[in-house]
Formats: sequence, C-alpha cells, structure tokens
Amino acid sequence: MAKPYVVGIDIGGTNTVFGIVDARGVVIASSSIKTQKHSKIEDYIDELHTELSRLIEANDAVDKIHGIGIGAPNANYYSGSIEVNVNLPWPAPIPLAKLVSDKFGIPVTITNDANAAAIGEMTYGAARGIKDFIMITLGTGVGSGIVINGQMVYGHDGFAGELGHVCMKRHNGRLCGCGRTGCLEAYCSATGVARTAREFLEIRTEPSRLREIEIDSITSKDVYDAAIAGDKLAKDIFEFTGTILGEALADFTSFSAPEAFILFGGLAKSGELLMKPLRESFEKNVMSTWKGKVKILLSELKEADAAVLGASALGWEAK
Amino acid sequence: MAKPYVVGIDIGGTNTVFGIVDARGVVIASSSIKTQKHSKIEDYIDELHTELSRLIEANDAVDKIHGIGIGAPNANYYSGSIEVNVNLPWPAPIPLAKLVSDKFGIPVTITNDANAAAIGEMTYGAARGIKDFIMITLGTGVGSGIVINGQMVYGHDGFAGELGHVCMKRHNGRLCGCGRTGCLEAYCSATGVARTAREFLEIRTEPSRLREIEIDSITSKDVYDAAIAGDKLAKDIFEFTGTILGEALADFTSFSAPEAFILFGGLAKSGELLMKPLRESFEKNVMSTWKGKVKILLSELKEADAAVLGASALGWEAK
Repeated sequence: MAKPYVVGIDIGGTNTVFGIVDARGVVIASSSIKTQKHSKIEDYIDELHTELSRLIEANDAVDKIHGIGIGAPNANYYSGSIEVNVNLPWPAPIPLAKLVSDKFGIPVTITNDANAAAIGEMTYGAARGIKDFIMITLGTGVGSGIVINGQMVYGHDGFAGELGHVCMKRHNGRLCGCGRTGCLEAYCSATGVARTAREFLEIRTEPSRLREIEIDSITSKDVYDAAIAGDKLAKDIFEFTGTILGEALADFTSFSAPEAFILFGGLAKSGELLMKPLRESFEKNVMSTWKGKVKILLSELKEADAAVLGASALGWEAK
Repeated sequence: MAKPYVVGIDIGGTNTVFGIVDARGVVIASSSIKTQKHSKIEDYIDELHTELSRLIEANDAVDKIHGIGIGAPNANYYSGSIEVNVNLPWPAPIPLAKLVSDKFGIPVTITNDANAAAIGEMTYGAARGIKDFIMITLGTGVGSGIVINGQMVYGHDGFAGELGHVCMKRHNGRLCGCGRTGCLEAYCSATGVARTAREFLEIRTEPSRLREIEIDSITSKDVYDAAIAGDKLAKDIFEFTGTILGEALADFTSFSAPEAFILFGGLAKSGELLMKPLRESFEKNVMSTWKGKVKILLSELKEADAAVLGASALGWEAK
C-alpha cells in the first residue's frame, strides 16, 4: 500500500521544526526541538527521534511515512551531508541523511533551506504549474533555489543556486560573510538593510525616526516600521535595496529566462516599499526580450508552515 | 530502418554552411551558400533546397536523413522561429523550422548558434561525458549555451542563456548593441577587445605597435598579433579582457555550479594571453566552495566543422 504521509524537518540555527504532511500539503501535526541543546550530533538525533516518533504515534502514522525530507543550511542533495558548517553546533561534514535514515529506518533526502523552499513553493505554493522559476529567500542572508523545466538545479556538485553571492558592486563593495565583497546578500538581506540604515544615518544629516534607536541595534524591522510611518530616510533605504535586487533579478533572467521569481522571507513582507523600486529597477535593467514579461511574486506558503512543507515535499522523492 | 544521417545548417550573417553528418560526428560532406543573396526568404529557402538536395543525392543519402538541425542567431527552439532579426536580410519573425521542413519533408529543429555550439560540444567535443557545463562563444558578440543535468536550458520562453548581456559595469559601462550598458559582450567579444584597444590608446601615452594602425580599424586580431610580438599595451588589453571574463564566470558558477566552462570562437584561440588572466580572475572571484574545482576548457571541435556539427546534433532530436 502506498504510504500516505511524508515528514518534513527544517533545521535552523535556533530551532528544528518538524511535521507530518499529507499528499495535499496539509500539515497534520508539527512540533520542534532546540537545535543548539546538544553538543554531540548523536544526542541531537536521539532527541529528534524521540520527539518525532511520539508525534508519528500520536497521529496514527506508524508505517505510513513514505520518506523524510530535510532542509538545512549548506545541506548537499547529492552527498546527503552538511558539508560546511556555519550555524550548527557540530563539526562538518555531518552525514545527516545517513544518521536520520539509520535511526528511523525511513528513506531520507536532504537539501539546503532555499532549495527546500523552492520545492515547497512548486509543490504547494505560488509556483504550482510553473516549470521555470527562481526562488529568492530574503532572510538573515539571501538564498536561492532555481527550478528549470520542472527540475531543481543542483549543479555538478550539489551546491548550485548561490545567488546571494553574485557580485553587485565590483569596487568598494561591502564585506560579505562568505569572505568576498559586494555580494547581493550584503545589500538585500535583513542584515544588509540594517547595514544600509547605518550607512545612510552616518552619511546623511536629515532627521529620521531611526536616529532614536541606538545605531548598532537597528534591525530591518525598525527600518520597515519607520518607512511605514512615513520616514523619508527609511523609505530611501527600501528604494536602495529594491533597486539592487531588481538589477540582480534582471541578470538572473538572462541566465535561465524564468517565468517568475518568487520572494520569500521577512523582507519579502515589506510590500510596496520593496516591490515598487524592485519592479522599476527590474524593468529598467532587464533585456528588452523580457520587459513586462517576468512575474515577480510573493510566496503563498504560510510562514509558520513553509519550512516544514518545503522539506516534506522532498520526502516524496526519498528512496 | 533507422536513418543514419542528420543535416546541420548554420545560418550566419554572411554564409550559410550545411553538411551531412553521421552518428559518430563525421561530416560526410558540406557546402555553403551566401546568406545575403536573396531579399526574399522564399528564394533563400529555394536555393538552400537546391544546393542541399544536390549534396544529399551526391552522397547517396536520399531518404537517409533523420532530421535537420539549424543554428541561427536569435532562433527560438520552442517557436521554431527567428523572433528578432539583427543580421539577416528578411523581416522577423521568420518561421524557419516550418519553411525548411515543408520544403524538405524532413523534421527540423532550430536553436540559436551558441546553444547549437553547446550541443555540438556535448555530443562530439570537449563536453562529452560532462552533464553540467556552460558554453561561452567569444566572437563578434558573446553568446552562451547552458547545459544542466545533461539538458540544454531553454528557459520559459526559449531565450535562456543570454550571458553576454549580464551587467559587468553598473556605472559608466560601455553601450552595448542590446541598447543597455555595461554588458559582458561590450568588453569580452572581439569587438569589445577592439574597443578596449581604442580606449587604452587614447588614455595611455606609452609607445605601442598598435599606434601604427589607423585607430578605428584596429581588430582583436591586431591586438593578438601585437601581444604575441611582446607589445605591453596589447598584453594589458588581454589582461583587462580576461579579468572581466573571469569575474563573469565566477558569478555564473554561483548560478548553476557547472563542472566546466567551454570557450569557443576567435578570442578563445588567444591561448595564455587570455587564459592566464581569466583563470587568475576566476579563482580570485569565485566562492571558496569552487576554488580550484571548475574546469575552463577550450572547444575541441574543428572550427570549420563546429557550427555544422552543433546544428546537426540537434537534428537527432527533430521529430
């Protein structure tokens, strides 16, 4: 009998969220554990097993799980490992797919969090029926998941889709977490927006609500709140951010000619503050072939469910 | 009985070259006609039919042609048409696949010239056995053909792979033939190299062999000859060109994580003059994930045969 459920696990730097999902994308049940609690990966896997097994039993899903999909930072689809460790407490490489499948006796497929988001959007969200699209996640960093002809692009080594690290400023670009300079992520992530705020506040002299906040603690949320309240400098920060993102999406279009971009993450909820300069910059910078023809959409997945849904969709292809 | 041959047709601005090719990639016979001779597309197709039929008959290939593949500038794989006309004497759109298949009674598939080159390289050349690579054609313009997981990337609308029009200089960039500024093609094509020569000769005061040539008639070949003879300014022009191309390939790697780039066209034959700064710039600019891991190769197809071979490979999938 075909097994009716999949499990999605989203491993974040703070929380690990997991849920049981049916074929229609309904999250039957979900729960979470703290990612950082265990200094040994084996202990973390033990707790994940205990809590997830409890959830599976409580929902009458024993022997009904087709596969487990996991989204985690830097997780490699081909190798099944987390190869580079940035935010997790265990030394890389972490053979995550093997550890989890050995423990549960269920097939496991893993990929990075942005790819999981793209798969979730394709299976259950704004990209249903769209075969060529690029998912852009605007969070602490800028991630991307590229889908071409209905297939996730993993590349030769499983690491394709690092669009947050395309160079947008060749000279005097900001230092990026990757060690290089000028990356898209250094400008268009939530942290990039906060950096822009600090730069603008230092360079410019006009009054701004943002000057009431201690400069090093300004967040993208503070900038959003100020812009919504009509603060000119805050609105200019979104203008600056949207313009650079539009330039980037125009170049990405020359690569794979997507039908749509789908934006996800905190910054994507800034509405027209971000979308208006983004669309204007995109249309100004894209080749004439594509002017007026590429959709820039927002994710349709509920944020609370999105990470688990995206990972779970990968569970259907686990074997 | 399976038909043992395909026909490849390469439509260039000056010449239309065509040939009969067997399954091992041997060009059995080839010939050409002048592209610009006929002001009406029907007359051009008539002459192509006459000359190609003669070739087919002379080589005992009647009823043995599986399909016809055509490479032409701006030819669209999906629509079968040349949608935008830059160098051809007939008004666009030109329903090329239909015109040729109606005339010959043989299935026809078309694509743009850079994609045809990529397919040729994958089938018969340097990309045999490589499933993820990007073909970069360095000719009058800069073209590209992207292969991911063994499949040509056409994108949503058939126009994917316009990497010559990714922006490399956001401010004060050179005007490009596409109407935008700062495109890769404006720097790293043969015409881009000639433009760099004119810029360098105007800005700099040192002696150079290139000063013996009337400045507006300098070609990339002149720059190559001067550089080979040891001319410092000419060598700097290649350094400048290779550096920008390396920056571009580093960004393209973040997109699709290819195993290799394959360079084709006149400039690609500049040897270490171009390759040394290109590799250095690539390694300096690429994300650490890929340092030392991506091959930058030269086409292995004989230039005289390459265009026909590439187009012909597409003939196998015509139906």
